[in-house]
Amino acid sequence: MTDPRHPTAQYPTAQYPTALGASTTSTISLLGQDLAADLMGTVGFGELAMWLVTQERPTPGQVRVLEAVLVALADHGFTPTAIAARLTYLSAPDSLQGALAAGLLGGGSRFLGVTEDSGGFLADVLSRHADAVPADLDDDTAWDALALTAVTETREAGRYVPGLGHPVHKELDPRTPRLMQIAEEEDLKGPHLRLFEAIGRVHPQVLGRTLPLNGAGVCGAALADLGLPTELLRGFSLLARTAGLLGQLAEERRRPVAGDIYLHVEHAAESVDPEPLRPRTDRA
Amino acid sequence: MTDPRHPTAQYPTAQYPTALGASTTSTISLLGQDLAADLMGTVGFGELAMWLVTQERPTPGQVRVLEAVLVALADHGFTPTAIAARLTYLSAPDSLQGALAAGLLGGGSRFLGVTEDSGGFLADVLSRHADAVPADLDDDTAWDALALTAVTETREAGRYVPGLGHPVHKELDPRTPRLMQIAEEEDLKGPHLRLFEAIGRVHPQVLGRTLPLNGAGVCGAALADLGLPTELLRGFSLLARTAGLLGQLAEERRRPVAGDIYLHVEHAAESVDPEPLRPRTDRA
Amino acid sequence: MTDPRHPTAQYPTAQYPTALGASTTSTISLLGQDLAADLMGTVGFGELAMWLVTQERPTPGQVRVLEAVLVALADHGFTPTAIAARLTYLSAPDSLQGALAAGLLGGGSRFLGVTEDSGGFLADVLSRHADAVPADLDDDTAWDALALTAVTETREAGRYVPGLGHPVHKELDPRTPRLMQIAEEEDLKGPHLRLFEAIGRVHPQVLGRTLPLNGAGVCGAALADLGLPTELLRGFSLLARTAGLLGQLAEERRRPVAGDIYLHVEHAAESVDPEPLRPRTDRA
Amino acid sequence: MTDPRHPTAQYPTAQYPTALGASTTSTISLLGQDLAADLMGTVGFGELAMWLVTQERPTPGQVRVLEAVLVALADHGFTPTAIAARLTYLSAPDSLQGALAAGLLGGGSRFLGVTEDSGGFLADVLSRHADAVPADLDDDTAWDALALTAVTETREAGRYVPGLGHPVHKELDPRTPRLMQIAEEEDLKGPHLRLFEAIGRVHPQVLGRTLPLNGAGVCGAALADLGLPTELLRGFSLLARTAGLLGQLAEERRRPVAGDIYLHVEHAAESVDPEPLRPRTDRA
Repeated sequence: MTDPRHPTAQYPTAQYPTALGASTTSTISLLGQDLAADLMGTVGFGELAMWLVTQERPTPGQVRVLEAVLVALADHGFTPTAIAARLTYLSAPDSLQGALAAGLLGGGSRFLGVTEDSGGFLADVLSRHADAVPADLDDDTAWDALALTAVTETREAGRYVPGLGHPVHKELDPRTPRLMQIAEEEDLKGPHLRLFEAIGRVHPQVLGRTLPLNGAGVCGAALADLGLPTELLRGFSLLARTAGLLGQLAEERRRPVAGDIYLHVEHAAESVDPEPLRPRTDRA
Repeated sequence: MTDPRHPTAQYPTAQYPTALGASTTSTISLLGQDLAADLMGTVGFGELAMWLVTQERPTPGQVRVLEAVLVALADHGFTPTAIAARLTYLSAPDSLQGALAAGLLGGGSRFLGVTEDSGGFLADVLSRHADAVPADLDDDTAWDALALTAVTETREAGRYVPGLGHPVHKELDPRTPRLMQIAEEEDLKGPHLRLFEAIGRVHPQVLGRTLPLNGAGVCGAALADLGLPTELLRGFSLLARTAGLLGQLAEERRRPVAGDIYLHVEHAAESVDPEPLRPRTDRA
Repeated sequence: MTDPRHPTAQYPTAQYPTALGASTTSTISLLGQDLAADLMGTVGFGELAMWLVTQERPTPGQVRVLEAVLVALADHGFTPTAIAARLTYLSAPDSLQGALAAGLLGGGSRFLGVTEDSGGFLADVLSRHADAVPADLDDDTAWDALALTAVTETREAGRYVPGLGHPVHKELDPRTPRLMQIAEEEDLKGPHLRLFEAIGRVHPQVLGRTLPLNGAGVCGAALADLGLPTELLRGFSLLARTAGLLGQLAEERRRPVAGDIYLHVEHAAESVDPEPLRPRTDRA
Repeated sequence: MTDPRHPTAQYPTAQYPTALGASTTSTISLLGQDLAADLMGTVGFGELAMWLVTQERPTPGQVRVLEAVLVALADHGFTPTAIAARLTYLSAPDSLQGALAAGLLGGGSRFLGVTEDSGGFLADVLSRHADAVPADLDDDTAWDALALTAVTETREAGRYVPGLGHPVHKELDPRTPRLMQIAEEEDLKGPHLRLFEAIGRVHPQVLGRTLPLNGAGVCGAALADLGLPTELLRGFSLLARTAGLLGQLAEERRRPVAGDIYLHVEHAAESVDPEPLRPRTDRA
């Protein structure tokens, strides 16, 4: 079919390939598997989530690390996103999906950024300094050297190392050693985690003070070591948060706080005079 | 503090209770547990999701049934919601959370309705006919009788039994027997599932034709038998879909189809004359 | 093309009709008009919004009433939706569309319900009691009688009249007389507004106390008198809110409060013990 | 109140300033105006939208240019966002706000990017080459020189000038001359528009071919010349789109196409084998 607006273009018969869900009258398949016979009751939910993204069945070790990450990131109490979800549910109890979506929409660069920023930062260092990456993952001396390079060049560029430091856990983020341990147990403590750990050791030499490794940042490193691309790390943070938000909304139904939060804000509101934005085009 | 608009009201010091996430400088707790020591690496993601909602640790059997449900509902190929998510990602690749949210926003009454509608229908029948519910869950004769009552009264009210029938799987939805079997194995084939199964047996007597039990409806019954309230069933469908949508977006990155879908629609668009809505207020 | 899953179905060549936007290489049309030559610079935004929905160009009087409604509903300070939008923007400043969307998602049954509920209630009364609707819109005696019927039957059904009463403006909602006046000036004070006004007069006879007509409810009546269907009234509330939320986000950029709101909630959080949901299936 | 986690920090009594909506029992104010007496029926919706963002009442000329922009951007037929909104409404007809939100979520970098990218690009050039900006806005020779500089340096950096070129209107985007004319009429053809127009004149010298100025890009320049900051340009595109999406959803109610689009995709789906993502961590 030719389009008069694009006389030289041609549009083939549409075909949309997918390796995900498909069905016939009597079967349902997913990722080439029989959903009922092969997946239901034998494959876990975290396991399936990773399988859906990578299109390859994860090993039990990979599943353990992934689920540890999801558990670590699922809920952090009254975060801005949890509050937003509860407020939305208060206003629109007719739409649970709206409240969940509103909560997830805060999962952007600032709130969920650490996980993907750390994973991306580490991936970038490993890529640009591929020659300095030790063949033996246990070569801590080599990791320390590469870490020193990474922290130094970051500082010189006037930037911060993502995942270094935490606003509350100023000395130790308890998620960090635990996730490192789990990854070690599953033989999945790969280059990203090793490099991050080394950064944790050597950065005081460059920055002049000691900061903890942010657990959410370690999560990013762990996901990267599972082979997940940087651009999708945020997706797993969001999946984890979905479970957390479901818990927040379930609790809001039983112990509502959104109404009180709203009243607090409304009563502490202070009416001030408008302040013009100062239009940038001043005609003399 | 009194509010001049409500002179007799008083507002106490705000306090927002939560049993979910909390943290101090050195610890992070969730549901009264130490996140790092007690949960990470030992609790699965599906397990935590249910725990977050019920605030009670589920048994292994409950986890197995829940995860079978999540796996069953996660992805069904190019559903309207999957297409919407992909189209949103095409237009706004800068926001993965926006694409996920857009996909979830279609999880409303029509697309995801079966699960919660079935669960709710069964719960309602069990509640209104509590006296007819057999003490012995294996008393199929009693279940058949109650099912006959339910189908008959629904038909007489001019309504359909939710979860009875499927647009594609006209004879058997393969998810149905599998989920019944898993629930049986875990000793969690409770009243909702039993009643639904009985409806599957007896409805031809009333409706004059045989319809399959919709797998998504069986999921609703199974979730209800796990003790989850009707109003939150949709939440678990949405959690499942989040994993599915993540898979759809990951695939869109590698095998994009959204652009082609858009072009198809654009080229098949037919410009027609406006058709006035016919304002209801016609002044003579 | 036949589908093996539906052997007897056939799918025609797709064609998607629309009277809205269309374009060729050199022209852009919208609603049958030339966008550049006929609409830009001559048609207002509120005017176009109504035209897009009804597919008929509104009269200047209709535009004035519509814009009065949109202005009335645009912003109400720190509403739950405004707070949610600001919190989302705080967490995800990378996505203005996400923050706007999060704010709009609270526009559901509870927060924005009054406008559509009032419009729908009035439409329903006018429909069910069509014989009691006076031919002469100025026949206040007839309107009072119909209003009395409506309030009485609503009370007897154990329900409330939507739009009657306001949590803050307990005596007079200032938007009400103003909107009535504007509609009167434009000769668009139709059956919905007349009936609502009559309800305002007679309800004390039934309810035993005097309540103000909620301005948002009057907005619903005014929109209904413009010929807009009940199911779309919420859409205009949402359009109005979009402008308001844009103002809230612009102000948040200059006078941020979301961070303080978050800190307030976080510090007033009280960690409590988990409280099991009490699963409904207790096996003896 | 001190927080045990931050022993040295103190938290003052919360106060949230806003110049937007406020109310007492008998009045409602907005931007320091009496909503009912000063705004309803006298201020237009587009006018209020700009006022809410800048906190300064726009002049009639500014309103005309703004509304011309909003009208130009409101609807472009079956865009990915319009399709996503319709698909969401098909799946969740219970939530109009969800369908609107889903449509807006596609308003990101790729779909709506031109307007803000153009505005931002022009603002950046004007800022970095402030000395080359003519004092006399009519000095086309000076504008041509600055435009040449801008196009050349952009090309040398390996980038494209945003807003130059259009996928469909390969010779002339009809919105461009019309918007330039309206801005001229209102004496608001400022530096951004002048520079953009000059780019339209001189770029063939650098690029070797002639491209049209994208109308959406001209919209960005016009908004910038109204004094609106780059970071908020997207907000006005989104406000415009909200009206367009409302029209799309209203039309979907009367002439549904989403179901057919879904069926088309579903039937053209092709089941393929899973293709592993190729994990990046291969342990030898």
